[in-house]
Amino acid sequence: MNVGAFYVGDRTFDVAESPPVPPGPDEVRVDVAYTGICGTDLHILHGAMDGRVTRPAVLGHEMSGQVAETGHAVTGWTVGDRVTVMPLAWCGACPACRAGHAHVCHHLNFIGIDSPGAMQSSWTVPAHLLVRLPDELSLRHGALVEPAAVAVHDVRRSRLRSGERAVVVGAGPVGLLIACVARETGADVVVVEIEQHRRTVAKELGLRVVDPTATDVAAFVEEWTAGAGADVAFEVSGAAAGVRTAVDVLAVRGRLVVVAIHPTPREVNLHRVFWRELEVLGVRVYQRTDFEEAVRLLTTGAVPADRLISAVVSLPDVSEAFAALESGSTVKVLIDCGAVADEPV
Amino acid sequence: MNVGAFYVGDRTFDVAESPPVPPGPDEVRVDVAYTGICGTDLHILHGAMDGRVTRPAVLGHEMSGQVAETGHAVTGWTVGDRVTVMPLAWCGACPACRAGHAHVCHHLNFIGIDSPGAMQSSWTVPAHLLVRLPDELSLRHGALVEPAAVAVHDVRRSRLRSGERAVVVGAGPVGLLIACVARETGADVVVVEIEQHRRTVAKELGLRVVDPTATDVAAFVEEWTAGAGADVAFEVSGAAAGVRTAVDVLAVRGRLVVVAIHPTPREVNLHRVFWRELEVLGVRVYQRTDFEEAVRLLTTGAVPADRLISAVVSLPDVSEAFAALESGSTVKVLIDCGAVADEPV
Repeated sequence: MNVGAFYVGDRTFDVAESPPVPPGPDEVRVDVAYTGICGTDLHILHGAMDGRVTRPAVLGHEMSGQVAETGHAVTGWTVGDRVTVMPLAWCGACPACRAGHAHVCHHLNFIGIDSPGAMQSSWTVPAHLLVRLPDELSLRHGALVEPAAVAVHDVRRSRLRSGERAVVVGAGPVGLLIACVARETGADVVVVEIEQHRRTVAKELGLRVVDPTATDVAAFVEEWTAGAGADVAFEVSGAAAGVRTAVDVLAVRGRLVVVAIHPTPREVNLHRVFWRELEVLGVRVYQRTDFEEAVRLLTTGAVPADRLISAVVSLPDVSEAFAALESGSTVKVLIDCGAVADEPV
Repeated sequence: MNVGAFYVGDRTFDVAESPPVPPGPDEVRVDVAYTGICGTDLHILHGAMDGRVTRPAVLGHEMSGQVAETGHAVTGWTVGDRVTVMPLAWCGACPACRAGHAHVCHHLNFIGIDSPGAMQSSWTVPAHLLVRLPDELSLRHGALVEPAAVAVHDVRRSRLRSGERAVVVGAGPVGLLIACVARETGADVVVVEIEQHRRTVAKELGLRVVDPTATDVAAFVEEWTAGAGADVAFEVSGAAAGVRTAVDVLAVRGRLVVVAIHPTPREVNLHRVFWRELEVLGVRVYQRTDFEEAVRLLTTGAVPADRLISAVVSLPDVSEAFAALESGSTVKVLIDCGAVADEPV
């Protein structure tokens, strides 16, 4: 029997059993090991996306597991294969898909938001969305592939090169992942974070950290870069002040990557964008290549999963898992979906 | 004797004689034929840049002329050579210069704003800033090379390709030049302009024009591009509404080029920047390659200079020339600086 956490509205989950969904010809059914909670899941729990999310809804799009059953047309996958899932379903026909940008399809189905996700023990998905996890990568760590792929996509789109200097504004889970991925490119990285706990985590990851309430960030970057400014800034705070900081620290021809979601328009210093010939890049989700690179970075330890996973909570305690994330004193909280026996970490 | 128009403050020019400046070893003295008036010159006349401009000031940075005298170390230039001048002097030592972006040098001297310009009959400049005008290009048309180089730079930085669709928001002189250069790349171009006179000029140039007070521009572009959105938008209006329009019309991965100067921060829909993975590109002045391409486009007629030059006024009537520009019923007004005999146009 499948056990799932169903968001029913009003900040409430019902944990309930349901029959597993048998895979269609091109689908696989996956036994889910771990599912991470994303900030978006928290938004949904708060009711902020009730207009988009059909309830009861199974959330979850950061996961790891094992193939449990394959549809009759599926090739290349065997029961027991260790996998994660790229949770995007595109239409293939819209202008974005035809232009080769299927990951931002006009009619994108983000699986786990727009259709059932991975906060259940048994999950049935299209086989072409599977991404293989190597034996050396634990399933706990494998649940971090999806958020790490976000970071890989963002750093890739920034064209950050070895020796360049990057400022990451905001040290939530995605900001920390971006900082780790950016560091791995050979760039020199500084993280700007307003909250003490997040600064501590960033320091534990070996990152250089600036507190913008105590330090003039623009002056700091001016000195750090010998007057040049930073080559790349990642705006991961979602705050108006974060946008200002990211624009203010950039060098001539610097690239500002807009990672965070800003629900309302933000004031942007377009004079500086003009004066320094800056580049502002929107980034959203990822492509398969980003998933594959994320697997590699987690396997080598360049993205140190253990330091990012704050807690693992079993599926029946899903509400506590969300409460832990809400407390602000955690980085990444995983739900143990119970379908795969624990591995040694 | 040199005759110059000196901006003395308080919206006033003094036309006065002064001795010509003899060229230093690496300089040339140019007999100025025609000097165009730029929107920035008008700003200066209005006192808006008095903090930057040392008075009395000779303005003017869009010009054509003939070499009159060469410094003893100058090679490759002969008296009588027909030229224009790229009016930028960079320090060569700052981070922007060292990174190969000398045109946006941290200490840029924009000649004609920060140091004496071309609204005089005799102008002495570094020889390495000369750009040769072919015999087939009249000196009247040659005075348009500088603003055309702005447009070439902007279109080049947009990476606009043949077959793509571009929206130009704002049909002042620079907007019209951008539209012409964009059309020459093989792109399909639409101009958005709020003022009737400018729409008429744009139509006379054979451009497709939309009046945003009568047409929903986003809906128009949606239909024009079969739901895709435009590949490139040029914001040349300087208005908050222009920024909104430019963001609203873009396709997934579309490029927004910020050409106009926005003195105050503007609200930008960063959610759409994220959602469609847009790219916002600041652009400023030009590089030598842009001047050379501008010369080519004016020579072939791809940039139709005659249709853009509304009036030619003699130097003693400089105030009338500025008044004509201020009236809003002209595109480009040239000052005949009197040092070169008229050519047949």
